[in-house]
Amino acid sequence: MLPRGRPRALGAATLLLLVVVVVGFFLFGRDPEYGLQATATLDGDPYGSRNGSTSDLQPLLPPKCELLHVAIVCAGHNSSREVITLVKSVLFYRKNPLHLHLVTDAVARMILETLFRTWMVPAVTIRFYDAEELKPLISWIPNKHYSGLYGLMKLVLPSILPLSLARVVVLDTDVTFSSDIAELWALFAHFSDKQVIGLVENQSDWYLGNLWKNHKPWPALGRGFNTGVILLQLDRLRQSGWEQMWKLMAKRELLTLQATSLADQDVFNAVIKEHPELVHPLPCVWNVQLSDHTLAERCYLEAADLKVIHWNSPKKLRVKNKHAEFFRNLHLTFLGYDGKLLRRELFGCPSQLPAEAEQLQQAMAQLDEEEPCFEFRQQQLTVHRVHITFLPHQLPPPQPHDVTLVAQLSMDRLQMLEALCRHWPGPMSLALYLTDAEAQQFLHFVETSPVLSARKDVAYHIVYREGPLYPVNQLRNVALAQALTPYVFLSDIDFLPAYSLYDYLRASIEQLELSSLQRKAALVVPAFETLHYRFSFPNSKAELLTLLDAGSLYTFRYHEWPQGHAPTDYARWREAQAPYRVQWAADYEPYVVVPRDCPRYDPRFVGFGWNKVAHIIELDAQEYELLVLPEAFSIHLPHAPSLDISRFRSSPTYRDCLQAFKEEFHQDLSRRYGAAALKYLTALQPSQSRA
Amino acid sequence: MLPRGRPRALGAATLLLLVVVVVGFFLFGRDPEYGLQATATLDGDPYGSRNGSTSDLQPLLPPKCELLHVAIVCAGHNSSREVITLVKSVLFYRKNPLHLHLVTDAVARMILETLFRTWMVPAVTIRFYDAEELKPLISWIPNKHYSGLYGLMKLVLPSILPLSLARVVVLDTDVTFSSDIAELWALFAHFSDKQVIGLVENQSDWYLGNLWKNHKPWPALGRGFNTGVILLQLDRLRQSGWEQMWKLMAKRELLTLQATSLADQDVFNAVIKEHPELVHPLPCVWNVQLSDHTLAERCYLEAADLKVIHWNSPKKLRVKNKHAEFFRNLHLTFLGYDGKLLRRELFGCPSQLPAEAEQLQQAMAQLDEEEPCFEFRQQQLTVHRVHITFLPHQLPPPQPHDVTLVAQLSMDRLQMLEALCRHWPGPMSLALYLTDAEAQQFLHFVETSPVLSARKDVAYHIVYREGPLYPVNQLRNVALAQALTPYVFLSDIDFLPAYSLYDYLRASIEQLELSSLQRKAALVVPAFETLHYRFSFPNSKAELLTLLDAGSLYTFRYHEWPQGHAPTDYARWREAQAPYRVQWAADYEPYVVVPRDCPRYDPRFVGFGWNKVAHIIELDAQEYELLVLPEAFSIHLPHAPSLDISRFRSSPTYRDCLQAFKEEFHQDLSRRYGAAALKYLTALQPSQSRA
Repeated sequence: MLPRGRPRALGAATLLLLVVVVVGFFLFGRDPEYGLQATATLDGDPYGSRNGSTSDLQPLLPPKCELLHVAIVCAGHNSSREVITLVKSVLFYRKNPLHLHLVTDAVARMILETLFRTWMVPAVTIRFYDAEELKPLISWIPNKHYSGLYGLMKLVLPSILPLSLARVVVLDTDVTFSSDIAELWALFAHFSDKQVIGLVENQSDWYLGNLWKNHKPWPALGRGFNTGVILLQLDRLRQSGWEQMWKLMAKRELLTLQATSLADQDVFNAVIKEHPELVHPLPCVWNVQLSDHTLAERCYLEAADLKVIHWNSPKKLRVKNKHAEFFRNLHLTFLGYDGKLLRRELFGCPSQLPAEAEQLQQAMAQLDEEEPCFEFRQQQLTVHRVHITFLPHQLPPPQPHDVTLVAQLSMDRLQMLEALCRHWPGPMSLALYLTDAEAQQFLHFVETSPVLSARKDVAYHIVYREGPLYPVNQLRNVALAQALTPYVFLSDIDFLPAYSLYDYLRASIEQLELSSLQRKAALVVPAFETLHYRFSFPNSKAELLTLLDAGSLYTFRYHEWPQGHAPTDYARWREAQAPYRVQWAADYEPYVVVPRDCPRYDPRFVGFGWNKVAHIIELDAQEYELLVLPEAFSIHLPHAPSLDISRFRSSPTYRDCLQAFKEEFHQDLSRRYGAAALKYLTALQPSQSRA
Repeated sequence: MLPRGRPRALGAATLLLLVVVVVGFFLFGRDPEYGLQATATLDGDPYGSRNGSTSDLQPLLPPKCELLHVAIVCAGHNSSREVITLVKSVLFYRKNPLHLHLVTDAVARMILETLFRTWMVPAVTIRFYDAEELKPLISWIPNKHYSGLYGLMKLVLPSILPLSLARVVVLDTDVTFSSDIAELWALFAHFSDKQVIGLVENQSDWYLGNLWKNHKPWPALGRGFNTGVILLQLDRLRQSGWEQMWKLMAKRELLTLQATSLADQDVFNAVIKEHPELVHPLPCVWNVQLSDHTLAERCYLEAADLKVIHWNSPKKLRVKNKHAEFFRNLHLTFLGYDGKLLRRELFGCPSQLPAEAEQLQQAMAQLDEEEPCFEFRQQQLTVHRVHITFLPHQLPPPQPHDVTLVAQLSMDRLQMLEALCRHWPGPMSLALYLTDAEAQQFLHFVETSPVLSARKDVAYHIVYREGPLYPVNQLRNVALAQALTPYVFLSDIDFLPAYSLYDYLRASIEQLELSSLQRKAALVVPAFETLHYRFSFPNSKAELLTLLDAGSLYTFRYHEWPQGHAPTDYARWREAQAPYRVQWAADYEPYVVVPRDCPRYDPRFVGFGWNKVAHIIELDAQEYELLVLPEAFSIHLPHAPSLDISRFRSSPTYRDCLQAFKEEFHQDLSRRYGAAALKYLTALQPSQSRA
């Protein structure tokens, strides 16, 4: 009689294992002639069976919780965006812990370090490797491929990855997963003793050398292999003297060919041509290549299941292909996918979170869901994913009096950006509060705007949306932290500065000797507002005063909230010829220019109300002089009330919570500044809550 | 020697098949005692092996292109939303054509018919079955479950589905897939000759009857089975006299138990208790049940891969569970997933699109990408997914003079809704242009607003975003088509009507005898604007005139676009005591009240400009009298310029394209109205393009 229950399942598992080995022998047994199996070439008939890829058998998935290693070379702003989409697609399907080995330049490192720190995905470890240090190892190879030197760096991975690392999956930034990467990892189990590199056949005729007259590709076995997805058996590669091998081959070919055309891929193919026993061909579905003259259709029309899409045309998503829409949709899925949903634990695998994330989780868990301000407190604790310099950005040249305009916005203020660029010719650091999908719309918006795409001195930082309340001060702090000039103009997105303001501020900073003296000052830029959609922006203070007298302009919030700017003393400003000092008063919230090491904004103020007021108190408490500049001005344009201000007005809880946070803020202030903070508390009248 | 190439692959496939059969015997062989295998119960140790579920072997996926059948019972607005998320999750992972058999009430049918017609997903066929007709078949069973009568309808599926249908997967609306439904379908192959119902064990102690004192559940085998996911072998069920069987059993149990507690599930379990040979137990991962006292952890902590999540608590996503966040993230993935990305063809499967969609695809393909107005023409052709009555909605009681306010908006105008509800106590039909993710935010917004959630006479229709230009007239047409009163007030979302307008309009319609006479009239509601964020809304025409004289209000667009409303003749309106007739003039675009069978808006006008002007021309061409109402008014609130108006102002191409569409519109007009349309053409001066 057959055993039952657990023993029966075990028996089945053993039998299955046996079978897998036998089947594996059938399907993966090396062809002595080429080291290629029929299943992996485009010209065979590998897709007669329903599934098209042997991997559908999933014979040996790695054990639950086994750590999988992935290496990616990534440089610059655009590749950093690309790699995030790749990583999202991997995370979406993965069920194993991952260790990402990222070879990055300084830009990509800055971006990705911030991103992964704030992303806090469980069971993902990141290690960075400095691409700068690798350049000498490969810069002797002339290369014509658009990936530049960075493409070639995949050749040196066996030398630079830790010796303890035996296997790694190497990915180009322009691939998208539509399956669990563990299935790819599982293919290592099919390597013979001699096989050290797993690759998919190249899905074009490039290496056949017949694409055009005098087309001289590097040598390759048949159609050659594509290196967008590589399985590297690192231990054996090192043992077999890989470093010498590829260098020798590259040097030999470079005697007759002037340069690589396809970067590392040419060298890999040249080595494989000479040593076919090194390659383990992978099923075509693991690297479906959508280059301009792709033959990938032969693969995907037959296969049941595509595993990895490779956008290996310089046109990327705009590649012409009759099925492009299909592939684009797969890619767009992850482009717009809300990354916070990938903060998923792996059930049954231990210790997945960094300490910081663990603490945060505990703090969140301690919040009382029944408390009236719960939503606010949850929002205050929320760590948003942050993608700094989302678009290409050039560092401003160091100038001692330079000023960066700092502001934050969400999607509904995008239309301000062009006007702002016209009014402010200097550097800007802008935090954008967007969903992943909106970030893509924003990208499109900038790319199609000649005004915006011409500006490389505007840094856009995406802070990804999470939670119901607008984290205004967290956004301001992100933009402030990324301002790289000595001074910052802390503005709001609805304001357009005077055309001359950028020059005038730099001149004022110099004249007032703010940097040379030990003078702590906040320069006040007086604020005005227009109530008309369209108006003719004043070219000078004189023109502004005329409009003011005509009732076409007002001082800012004159009707609704005069105390916010009254201390600026507009009457005095009319006549002023020189900067003048003003005193702090309750609820004062001017727009100011300060050194970039100024105090941060208090992140407890989320949603509407008191977010700037608290910051000005902080400046005053730290004894910044408030100096109003006589020629400076900035004008607020009209817009509909925000959702947050609407909620504030309609919800008593909202107002009560704001009051509670004001009080907590004052307690903290007393703690930090002692008796000096008393004046702020005295000024605070609970009944006079902002409305 | 072993055969090579194709014959070798065939050999392997044959061997594999053999093996699968053998392994299947080990794993799925029936236990003679219960008809249950150890692998399917919570108390066994089914998860000792890595994969936890036998389905990971994927031994017999259905053939490529095989049609899979799915049946779902769905009734009401909320379930209709739910089922779409379920369908999205199925479509995301599926690789086979699907036939959905939807048992619906009238509401769900209206919603889902519109949705699927506009969704145009390739290789998905829908058939509707009228739930009303099924009610007599099951209404004799008293039921305490929250699903009401609809839950019980699953029992009669074998009788009502087509006789030709041999197998069907039956799903509750509250399940989410995280795997390919073909893997579930493949489990039919493991049914023995007698097994007719595939079910996962119930993951709670409910049926053990020990949850509380005097808890008397229906009879079940052990923990019983959950019917959120069912495989029905319909042909054999019919042969075995299923209908008599379940009725007999239900009647017998109802002699001692007063009602079903868990609807169909109680009856299924009672039948299985009596006939255990009918059930084929499925691996637990195919129905991970997150009820309040779930034992599902025993399943998912061990399993490598969850296939289907079942939100079988009335709390749904708000269920308390220490891993709730994980499951919620899976669900939110599809809740916010952009449904248009699921318009993916199935490679290698024939004839997937309905004729309408095919034509559209061809029209799109014929557009010239290099033409300057390409983007506009593409937008004009775009068919947006439409989800009518996204939230619960009650039909207005039929009244001969009733008026529905019709408008459209996107996310940035949500804050208008509460004020609008206060100003307009009557029915509204609003089209919202949103992404899938925004639709969820909108849902949250309404649910947390006491003002909005109290109103059941406001119908919200989601038109899903697609393309770069705002399809303003398509949105208006959706809202207009769903207005169910005899008259409609065609307004814009930035306007607040006079508090009395709703009553006044109904009275005016009655007095003017618009319905009884053969009088075609458009009642003009004069439009004003305020430039202030906050102002005190006038309670009467007298108050309005005072504000107007004080310069606190203006006639609408007085500064920027006076010709849009000048023909309303505001001077005459000031004095008017009775409705007066005005004549059409170029660029006139008043807000009007018309019968709901009025002409539709011209969908060629996308983005900014001329969208209302063209509609008024159409009314005039059809000889609607334009009658200004002396006591009616509506006031526009300020907001920032839209992205579209900004683009219009900055892009000459945008203006040129608008001009081209105006001309095409006039040509169409001449074609339809002949010489009568000449006056519009004469009035059109190409130089006077709107700016």
